[in-house]
Amino acid sequence: MKAILVIGDGMGDRPIKALDCKTPLQVAEKPVLDRLASTGICGIMDPISPGIPPGSDTSHLSLFGYDPHKVYKGRGVFEALGAGLRVEKNDVSIRCNFATVDDNLIVLDRRAGRINTGGKEFETVINDYRLKSYPDVKIIFKHTTEHRGVMILRPIDPHPRFSWKVSDSDPHRTDLPIKSVEPLDNTPEALKTSKLMNELTDEFHSILDSHPHNIKRRSMNLLPANALLFRGASVLPKLESITKLYGIRALVIAAGAQYKGVGIAVGMDSIEVEGATGTTETDTILKAKAVLDNLQNYDYIFVHVKGTDNASHDGDLRKKISMIEKIDALLGHILKNAQTNKLIIAVTADHTTPVEIRDHTGDPVPLLISGPGVRVDKVERFSEIDCAQGSLGRIRGLDLTPILMNLIGKTKKFGV
Amino acid sequence: MKAILVIGDGMGDRPIKALDCKTPLQVAEKPVLDRLASTGICGIMDPISPGIPPGSDTSHLSLFGYDPHKVYKGRGVFEALGAGLRVEKNDVSIRCNFATVDDNLIVLDRRAGRINTGGKEFETVINDYRLKSYPDVKIIFKHTTEHRGVMILRPIDPHPRFSWKVSDSDPHRTDLPIKSVEPLDNTPEALKTSKLMNELTDEFHSILDSHPHNIKRRSMNLLPANALLFRGASVLPKLESITKLYGIRALVIAAGAQYKGVGIAVGMDSIEVEGATGTTETDTILKAKAVLDNLQNYDYIFVHVKGTDNASHDGDLRKKISMIEKIDALLGHILKNAQTNKLIIAVTADHTTPVEIRDHTGDPVPLLISGPGVRVDKVERFSEIDCAQGSLGRIRGLDLTPILMNLIGKTKKFGV
Repeated sequence: MKAILVIGDGMGDRPIKALDCKTPLQVAEKPVLDRLASTGICGIMDPISPGIPPGSDTSHLSLFGYDPHKVYKGRGVFEALGAGLRVEKNDVSIRCNFATVDDNLIVLDRRAGRINTGGKEFETVINDYRLKSYPDVKIIFKHTTEHRGVMILRPIDPHPRFSWKVSDSDPHRTDLPIKSVEPLDNTPEALKTSKLMNELTDEFHSILDSHPHNIKRRSMNLLPANALLFRGASVLPKLESITKLYGIRALVIAAGAQYKGVGIAVGMDSIEVEGATGTTETDTILKAKAVLDNLQNYDYIFVHVKGTDNASHDGDLRKKISMIEKIDALLGHILKNAQTNKLIIAVTADHTTPVEIRDHTGDPVPLLISGPGVRVDKVERFSEIDCAQGSLGRIRGLDLTPILMNLIGKTKKFGV
Repeated sequence: MKAILVIGDGMGDRPIKALDCKTPLQVAEKPVLDRLASTGICGIMDPISPGIPPGSDTSHLSLFGYDPHKVYKGRGVFEALGAGLRVEKNDVSIRCNFATVDDNLIVLDRRAGRINTGGKEFETVINDYRLKSYPDVKIIFKHTTEHRGVMILRPIDPHPRFSWKVSDSDPHRTDLPIKSVEPLDNTPEALKTSKLMNELTDEFHSILDSHPHNIKRRSMNLLPANALLFRGASVLPKLESITKLYGIRALVIAAGAQYKGVGIAVGMDSIEVEGATGTTETDTILKAKAVLDNLQNYDYIFVHVKGTDNASHDGDLRKKISMIEKIDALLGHILKNAQTNKLIIAVTADHTTPVEIRDHTGDPVPLLISGPGVRVDKVERFSEIDCAQGSLGRIRGLDLTPILMNLIGKTKKFGV
């Protein structure tokens, strides 16, 4: 028996007036999701706990069975792992956004128009950069998807010299200047790390602003990627591998580096899927094919689709609905081609991102589980509203992986 | 007001193809259980937490309100207490199975055909046995039900000399040799305990194999009980008595020693019921009569019926259904003869044991509570599927006893 967990990032929503007070899940055409709901068991799930808006990182940790209150040490490390970087125990990993700023470092666009050109060229100049004032640090930078990248500060001397207890430079909205990174505790390491990052803000702005590719972007009336915003400074959390905990082989299929990264951090293998982009342009059928190709070799496959969240953050209702339909197609392709009598399928979201709020909220998400041995309830459609009537009741994110492992016979008895 | 808690061991199940995708509870004839469900409130319950397959011991601790993650120190002690043995604080109590092995100690039957003869005779020879190589230990053995027994290793010198941190000798399946008991930590006590137990494995095999009763069993084409398998080494957990916590008098009515034992460990009185055997042959009406006889003297009576679990472990669907019907008869007898206007009745299982899996799983169990003051919901039948629609929602095992104590007015206010 195998389990597939499909997560539509930010797929949960609230009733929307323009939809006659229905949610995107309620209006999307999604025959496969509805069939799975009606042949399975449904419920709602608080990824962290009721009312708490999860980050994608803390939520995924929780969904894989790790209590983020205990293990979470910042997000950057997941971006770094997901980008294929090796992360060492003294490394501080930091998420970066390419952004557009004016001459006073006022942020005009936090995503530089979600750039889809120049990433690798920018990566090269940043990676080649060496700060004279901090000779004891190696800066490792990697561009990931769109405007996203990750930077590792690696002490050359092996003693821990840097700290993840520093604030973001990202002001998290436009029309504000890039923020000064501040130490979040009183250690000399946090102070040193914050000073270094502030120096890097200035240096990278100067390098990027005059970069030939940005000159080209300006000439094409595209926003230049002329600054790096830092957020989510982080170190490697200590986690016992999910493969060891349950005696399984596990795989993450995700385009977004941070999702791959959480998977890798908990011990999953990760594969690249060409054409799966982590955007609303992603080809979800290719992801379905990747699932089918790997089903033989894995007990637990986690498939992440990011587009639902992008559409929600952009307030793009139509795109969110169409992404839900793409997830439906992904599931349809799997069901048509897999041996379903040995397959547990779970579908949920990592959090609610209402298109009208454009940010994560603490509303629970819908969840369905379908497959052999599952107790079937009366829910016939997959939505926030329908699933709340389901027989799974209201569970926490932390419960999801044990529930799935139980259904594929991989949990260990506690006691005798 | 009094509360009766009836537990059908392993009564929960999954949809079964041979039953048209219904569960044994859904197809059993159980008018009393259904009447209780329709006049009471229902829900589902995770004995430990969602997805975690409970042992019977951890589950019962939890159902009585004790967090097994905090208090559990192995199972053998419950078997010992339930068998009527006095357990001292330095004792290591070990569950034993009479098993059938070949000359190479390969296990042919882990239960020696669920022996129903010879138990007392075997008990005597084991109890009389003194190991010359370990003069500082007293071995106390008691046969309980069928193939089950319990052994206490009691240090003659009062200093703690033995440890419960040792592995089982029981290979937990047939066609494998009896396992060597291994220390589970680095203490000299664990090492010493494991060595002693391995010596006992050999000595007991030699004593039992040539025992006259086994010669007789062989001549009757019955499997000989010619080895003891050890499992669940354990010491006494420190628990505050349930009678003190709630100011109640509490009674356990169970045939299986381990269930009596958990009751005794949490401070319940225990009585013997003749004809209640802890097997599928048990006479549940006698248990009902014992409840009625003791209702005057107790506030909380816990009635355990084991047969549903035995049938499940044996994959015997018909027997499981008939055991559910016996539980229904038990409840019918109580309801017909008790003063129901002062009675809260709760019925549930300690875990799910699907007949198709033949082992405990982490699926939630159905729960009903009926009696004066209970808020009635719309559930009309007692089953895993129906109860999931009930107004109790999805609770944890730890919540059950406080809920029942609340209904009989025995909980204390927290705060003012």
